[in-house]
Amino acid sequence: MRRLRYNVAASLDGYIADVNGGFDWIPDDSTVDFAALFARIDTVIMGRVTYEVMRSQPELPFNSGTRVYVVSRTLDRNTPGVTVVRDDPVALASSLRHEAGDGEIWLFGGGQLFAALLAADQVDAVEITIAPVLLGGGIPLLAHVDHRTALELVHTHTYPSGMVAVHYEVKRGATRV
Amino acid sequence: MRRLRYNVAASLDGYIADVNGGFDWIPDDSTVDFAALFARIDTVIMGRVTYEVMRSQPELPFNSGTRVYVVSRTLDRNTPGVTVVRDDPVALASSLRHEAGDGEIWLFGGGQLFAALLAADQVDAVEITIAPVLLGGGIPLLAHVDHRTALELVHTHTYPSGMVAVHYEVKRGATRV
Repeated sequence: MRRLRYNVAASLDGYIADVNGGFDWIPDDSTVDFAALFARIDTVIMGRVTYEVMRSQPELPFNSGTRVYVVSRTLDRNTPGVTVVRDDPVALASSLRHEAGDGEIWLFGGGQLFAALLAADQVDAVEITIAPVLLGGGIPLLAHVDHRTALELVHTHTYPSGMVAVHYEVKRGATRV
Repeated sequence: MRRLRYNVAASLDGYIADVNGGFDWIPDDSTVDFAALFARIDTVIMGRVTYEVMRSQPELPFNSGTRVYVVSRTLDRNTPGVTVVRDDPVALASSLRHEAGDGEIWLFGGGQLFAALLAADQVDAVEITIAPVLLGGGIPLLAHVDHRTALELVHTHTYPSGMVAVHYEVKRGATRV
């Protein structure tokens, strides 16, 4: 079974983008090892809002050959470089997780897609890199859901920029607390 | 100048209480050194909602002799054990911070009071102990505010229970990013 990881940067108050969708509050930190992250993933899933933010960047931040799925009811199906999935992100995630191989799946954002996949027990790991800032508003790292999810801390790392990475496994089965 | 610290436990998604005001999601952890925290504070400020939650507990979690201020327009002024402050929490915080001595002031909650004091530059330190859980909703650690606040990471600690403490100084002056 391939693992699906929600890996995002967030403010201390839990936002993955500011009220304008921006992320200029994430400090540059040359010690962040993106290569290690990219080496273990071969598939990326994201919601439409996250895609629009990412598309505004000069280039996609993924290795060539990475499969990119965007869950959206409105995005043009012929958008180059990505596969648009109209609905049922749970079926998409389940199908990708059951593929052969051990490449991992990166849930790149955002909070609504995370909520849908978390509720359907499709998320294996939650990895948040906390930036040293309070945004006071924006896009929450998790949209509102009506149950709790227990996590198990597996790793922390403090970066020179003051970012703190906290990595968790989702506690399955015994998970709803 | 006395220091004012916002010190709370929060879920990974940034809530200090669940949708019912509860905090049974905070793990018991015998290694949490409450004595060290209490030793350095002699004054506590909190909002009314936080006070109502705390009041439901068998006893106040503070040392005897600790001054407790509750900011509330509705709480009875004769509530025993606390000083009720009707309005202007900024004036209260400023007055307490300018008192002689080096006892510290613990902003115990909640997110609305924190927002008001943060906006008025009355908060010196932000200390969040992150519990290994996603609540999906509840009382945010910071109510919505319309500006960012830059922080400087000064300390982290990982507890056996999987809680992670992240301590920051509020960056004054250069603070709004």
